[in-house]
Amino acid sequence: MHVPEQRELPARDVVVVGGGIVGLSVAWRAARAGLTVTVLDPSPGDGATHAAAGMLAAVTEADFGEEHLTRLNLASAARWPAFAADLAAASGQDVGLQRRGTLAVAYDRDDLAVLRRVLALHRRWGLASAEVPVAEARRREPFLGPRLAGAALVDGDRAVDPRAVHAALTRALVHADGRAGSRAGGGALVRRAAVRLEQDHAGRVVAVHDDAGGRHTAGAVVLATGTPRDDTLLDGVPGVRLPVRPVKGLTLRLDAGPGLTPEHVVRGIVQGRPVYVVPRPAGTGTGPGSGPEHREVVVGATSDERPDDRRAEAGSVFSLLRDARALVPGLDEAALVDVTPRARPATPDNLPLIGATAVPGLLAATGHGRNGVLLAPLTADAVLAALTDGGVPLRLPADAPADLLGAADPRRFATTTRRAPEGAPA
Amino acid sequence: MHVPEQRELPARDVVVVGGGIVGLSVAWRAARAGLTVTVLDPSPGDGATHAAAGMLAAVTEADFGEEHLTRLNLASAARWPAFAADLAAASGQDVGLQRRGTLAVAYDRDDLAVLRRVLALHRRWGLASAEVPVAEARRREPFLGPRLAGAALVDGDRAVDPRAVHAALTRALVHADGRAGSRAGGGALVRRAAVRLEQDHAGRVVAVHDDAGGRHTAGAVVLATGTPRDDTLLDGVPGVRLPVRPVKGLTLRLDAGPGLTPEHVVRGIVQGRPVYVVPRPAGTGTGPGSGPEHREVVVGATSDERPDDRRAEAGSVFSLLRDARALVPGLDEAALVDVTPRARPATPDNLPLIGATAVPGLLAATGHGRNGVLLAPLTADAVLAALTDGGVPLRLPADAPADLLGAADPRRFATTTRRAPEGAPA
Repeated sequence: MHVPEQRELPARDVVVVGGGIVGLSVAWRAARAGLTVTVLDPSPGDGATHAAAGMLAAVTEADFGEEHLTRLNLASAARWPAFAADLAAASGQDVGLQRRGTLAVAYDRDDLAVLRRVLALHRRWGLASAEVPVAEARRREPFLGPRLAGAALVDGDRAVDPRAVHAALTRALVHADGRAGSRAGGGALVRRAAVRLEQDHAGRVVAVHDDAGGRHTAGAVVLATGTPRDDTLLDGVPGVRLPVRPVKGLTLRLDAGPGLTPEHVVRGIVQGRPVYVVPRPAGTGTGPGSGPEHREVVVGATSDERPDDRRAEAGSVFSLLRDARALVPGLDEAALVDVTPRARPATPDNLPLIGATAVPGLLAATGHGRNGVLLAPLTADAVLAALTDGGVPLRLPADAPADLLGAADPRRFATTTRRAPEGAPA
Repeated sequence: MHVPEQRELPARDVVVVGGGIVGLSVAWRAARAGLTVTVLDPSPGDGATHAAAGMLAAVTEADFGEEHLTRLNLASAARWPAFAADLAAASGQDVGLQRRGTLAVAYDRDDLAVLRRVLALHRRWGLASAEVPVAEARRREPFLGPRLAGAALVDGDRAVDPRAVHAALTRALVHADGRAGSRAGGGALVRRAAVRLEQDHAGRVVAVHDDAGGRHTAGAVVLATGTPRDDTLLDGVPGVRLPVRPVKGLTLRLDAGPGLTPEHVVRGIVQGRPVYVVPRPAGTGTGPGSGPEHREVVVGATSDERPDDRRAEAGSVFSLLRDARALVPGLDEAALVDVTPRARPATPDNLPLIGATAVPGLLAATGHGRNGVLLAPLTADAVLAALTDGGVPLRLPADAPADLLGAADPRRFATTTRRAPEGAPA
């Protein structure tokens, strides 16, 4: 084994391990608040971010037994318009915010029964949705298929283009300057894998070692690792094996052209199976080709309790195409340009891990499951509040529960490994 | 417009325009016979060759009204074992010859009625096929699906891997030496597009001009252009607009692994739609990954009267997956690794264009439709016989009709353009 020579790098306020949409959001917000930040990732944005469709679907993702998650999702959805505007201004890049809202549709009568149960849940939780006649749904969205049993409007559920968001975050991070009055902040993205955390004698995390021998001294370390493909990642700290499991998903990217593209996000239940069709606004999209003759549409997503093997099972592709064309038949004529299998990081209770861990100096920003894109702004603000000990206050909606972020506290899970920190008495 | 400076290149016995499997087969055979050969193609093998599944299916391709084509296909199928062995020896590369034969299956009773009509046609034409009980088919091929109405064995129909054949031809061509006693032959592959044919005052084609200003003097020119993406190709010669139309097709490549891969080619009719599943022999295949844990399976193919727009319509992908999984359900677990849309070159009578054209010095080797891979050896031998005026005799099977190649004579079609050759009196 080749052991690289150790290189000492300039000390940073924060080192973020993982450069997906969550890690970069944390890093960018921290750099904007005047902190110096390094993000470590050998292939930034190539995890769940690369597959994500980018729905900001706090309402249509709401599910029985997940009220805590729904409240977190709503609080983050409320942040997205300003986050997208800030990011566009900081990066000079569009992030493909879809503003037309979502149509939730049911394919057959059994699916309509499911949809109505969910709409009743929305009413119970005070979420904005409204059943409409199918004819009304089709008037708003002429690309809907001929066979639908029911429909509902969810105006608040929108979408962004995660690949565009990631590109904008990368650019904004690297160009971030500290605010006036604070010491100069700034961001760096280092394309290296973190391989080990280093603790001092008191057990505080003080540095991250990368696979090229670099030692990144840090005031604090944020783990935004999603589902690491390599279980050996981040050796060297007791109790930091985060309780994250991979939930594999597959999305398809189509080039639909202007004549075949719906203007709303369409979420359906087709013979019991969930499927969604997410169009990018005209003139945006990160797929092959650009310009008015191209319109990107994302179809997703499967959910399988499987590791991130990056295999696009033919049966999953088949299933997504079958259900998407049932909702929007014109997609048959769109070109399939990309099939993206990735795993999402899920936790035992399907709530994320946001904030301080049991290890001093170590924070978490992961475990977001299906909602990583949606929860990125809230996660970034919450982690920044924790990093600055309230120096940057976490502003929440007036109607948010007082314990909103308590449900996402990483310390709710017991640590799984207990080894003596390096150099400490055994 | 940038007009490149003309460069004079060494004179060759033959210039082949088009470096797909047909063009390279002609070129390799000619070089082996002692001729000097240049092949011109800006992206060799990226046309129909890249999509082709590689079935050598003279029997299962036999269709009503196409007895001439079937006879050509049989004559070429008979050449394939020796061609593959020669090519493997000349290149040192395997070409993935599948030796297990083909299972023809019918999904429902209507499909079985179609299959039986085809089997009756086989008997009438003396082709070897035999209906067997479904249980017998499943005993031979345990990966067949649970619902099948009927099956037949066609032992003579096999397959090769067209991408492997193309790679082997490329290598063999460049290393080809003339035979003892002849002047030194040899092959060259030039990655340039042919843009103009040049004729002498008598109207004989004497050179090909490429898009870098190269002038390739040639004893004869062979057009193996498939379906050119650019209609302006090959300006400058009257009467050489070949009567070829594009028939677009799509194939899928799956990585099935050893546990999911059938051992036979499976051709099916599924509710009236033709579909095939072509496994590569263990240890071969040109897909991503190699080694015993990978097995390539090709699923094909759609047929649409459309130009070569290189778009993989989602509806076509869906349709192929639906029908292939009906025949071999285990493919659901295989990884989809490649979707390849390309056009095949088809003629008005669906017979190829092989041999001398009405223009002196100009030969054709194109228009093979669905049978380009299968017909490559026969085409190469026939073109070589024409190039050498019988100096290299075209050996045909004893039972081949005397006029076998007459049906493929390019001169059966009227030329479509009549302009005066350059430099000739108007």
